Amino acid sequence: MTTVYVHGIGMTKFGSFEDKSLKDLLIEASIGALKDANLPKIDAVFVGNFMGGTLSNQEILGAIVANDLGLGYIPTAKLEGACASGGIALRQGVLSILSGEYENVLVVGAEKMKHASTATVTQFINTAMDQSTTEKEAGLTFPGFFGTVANRYMYETGAQKEHLAKVALKNRENAMNNPLAQFQKPTSIEEIVNARMVTDPLGLFDCSPITDGAAAVVLSSKPSNIKVRASSQSSGPTLMQDAIDLLSLPAVKISGERAYEKAGLGPEDIDVAEIHDCFSMTEILSIEELGFFPKLEGWKAVEAGETKVGGRIPVNTSGGLLSKGHPIGATGISQIYQLVRQLRGNAPNQLAKQPKIALAQNLGGTGAYSVVHILERV
Amino acid sequence: MTTVYVHGIGMTKFGSFEDKSLKDLLIEASIGALKDANLPKIDAVFVGNFMGGTLSNQEILGAIVANDLGLGYIPTAKLEGACASGGIALRQGVLSILSGEYENVLVVGAEKMKHASTATVTQFINTAMDQSTTEKEAGLTFPGFFGTVANRYMYETGAQKEHLAKVALKNRENAMNNPLAQFQKPTSIEEIVNARMVTDPLGLFDCSPITDGAAAVVLSSKPSNIKVRASSQSSGPTLMQDAIDLLSLPAVKISGERAYEKAGLGPEDIDVAEIHDCFSMTEILSIEELGFFPKLEGWKAVEAGETKVGGRIPVNTSGGLLSKGHPIGATGISQIYQLVRQLRGNAPNQLAKQPKIALAQNLGGTGAYSVVHILERV
Repeated sequence: MTTVYVHGIGMTKFGSFEDKSLKDLLIEASIGALKDANLPKIDAVFVGNFMGGTLSNQEILGAIVANDLGLGYIPTAKLEGACASGGIALRQGVLSILSGEYENVLVVGAEKMKHASTATVTQFINTAMDQSTTEKEAGLTFPGFFGTVANRYMYETGAQKEHLAKVALKNRENAMNNPLAQFQKPTSIEEIVNARMVTDPLGLFDCSPITDGAAAVVLSSKPSNIKVRASSQSSGPTLMQDAIDLLSLPAVKISGERAYEKAGLGPEDIDVAEIHDCFSMTEILSIEELGFFPKLEGWKAVEAGETKVGGRIPVNTSGGLLSKGHPIGATGISQIYQLVRQLRGNAPNQLAKQPKIALAQNLGGTGAYSVVHILERV
Repeated sequence: MTTVYVHGIGMTKFGSFEDKSLKDLLIEASIGALKDANLPKIDAVFVGNFMGGTLSNQEILGAIVANDLGLGYIPTAKLEGACASGGIALRQGVLSILSGEYENVLVVGAEKMKHASTATVTQFINTAMDQSTTEKEAGLTFPGFFGTVANRYMYETGAQKEHLAKVALKNRENAMNNPLAQFQKPTSIEEIVNARMVTDPLGLFDCSPITDGAAAVVLSSKPSNIKVRASSQSSGPTLMQDAIDLLSLPAVKISGERAYEKAGLGPEDIDVAEIHDCFSMTEILSIEELGFFPKLEGWKAVEAGETKVGGRIPVNTSGGLLSKGHPIGATGISQIYQLVRQLRGNAPNQLAKQPKIALAQNLGGTGAYSVVHILERV
């Protein structure tokens, strides 16, 4: 039975880079990962990207990366699954090694978004909704979806805007120690709660930003000290009207359950996690769906500081999407970047007790995709 | 060792469908393939698509197909590799079964293009070129690239426009018997040679059309009478200025060699082939690169009728991209549709001697990707 290991990681700074193209970002992160892996012969490249066609007029990113890096005439492909594009590319890398077809694979994700207007970005982010439906025509957006969810969550649980703000504050405090993060400026609960409203009850700090950036990973069937213990994926409803329960993200729950089953582990075995906090609300729902906390009690765990560095299950020690930034195709791979650094013992916000088991969860659409990877230090 | 088999095929008519969305096309082809496979439980969906984001404002096609068909919360992804998106999706389906992760996989490719203006389609097709280069800025297009190649080929070999026209005529004659093809109107060498020029020396009939359509395949590790004997892929230069030789398509050659090696076969063992004839010139180059005919002698084989139905190696019995049509993401999968029908003995232009070994080759960009699959009737 083949096992997949992580051999190298690379990541650009996340932020706004007027002078760098999508290709430049992909290449920079790839070179970082290839060097970190000691330049193995790469057998295939998988690229995670969502908006290259719409925002940069640039597809064929797989072939461009292989050509630009001089990797030879190897197989390459781009994977798209909205905001889960990076996690999906990673998973295809894992599966393709398990197939026996490749030994060493480069997985790289990137997005270039800051050059476009917010209206343009919003328009193309909405390609991650089913265009054929009335809810899209009625004007539903991603902040609108998660704002509705947040209102319902507060109604059902008694949680307040301050609990959402505590997620945003925690992730900002983590990002302050991460030089690759987009936002390092200190903030406060007061600033977060009083910030410009995006969609009630979600304010500016509750929403992940528009970001340029890239991240890369080299995977191999040859052993290293970081093993991919499980890779799993689930899809979920593409429409709000198809949700059985507004406070559930079935794709997150199922992808988590599948990952635990494959790894022979449970949520209690996870030492550190990177969770897809596209909105503060999403982090709370997802730590529930992944079994870290009981259903509808995630907000209490946040209030108690259980997801902080030093808490029971530190979540988003990188700063998360909210403050590290969210260059869509890169996000799922940048989660692996941070977790590998935690497992190696040299991460921003390194846990006092060097972790052994780490979990990454990457969401796409309004829950249309969720990908979970569990890594183990061996 | 796992082997992958084809269990079902489905395809929409190729043409212009104002009243059908990209999703409608994907679903129609998928239902055809699922029924043909006797409705197995599907474990994952791979979608091949190139322009959903730019021309239909629609991404997350994987999740949309899974949701719309009620396949459950299974893993899904979209694969992009320009005009090779379909072949790449098929290959990921094959690899994911070989990985042991899935038993039954639905692979479906589609494109909806006819609703957009030719200028818009041309603009977005050019996302399959590296945007960072001078040749793109200088105005190179895909017809421009293959027109330059054709001029050079004619200069080197003595081939004439009539030889290119014979490829277009053969494929039109094949399409006339294929009710799913876009073009069924008879034509002649005279009409083809005198047609409106697109890029010297390529006229209208030398260029594949803009098309709506979809095709789907169900793959499984359970035996059927159609085995995937080999799946291979190569990348090649993304730029004309990087071509060592204008008359070579290294990705086609290497993907062919890898496929033959995996299958333990040679070009002489192939009974029937579907080749990526995005331009008449491309078919001639590719039948050389795949070893069916010696280098620079493909045009003589065309003249001698060796690639016709009844010839030594019938190529594009479906009508090919030139006359069956070229809905980009569907093309690589529609090749499999035709070949499976040939192997089953019920194809349009069925060969008199029912073939046993069939080869499909799908190109992306100006040779940036090539995917080859070899199927066997067992």
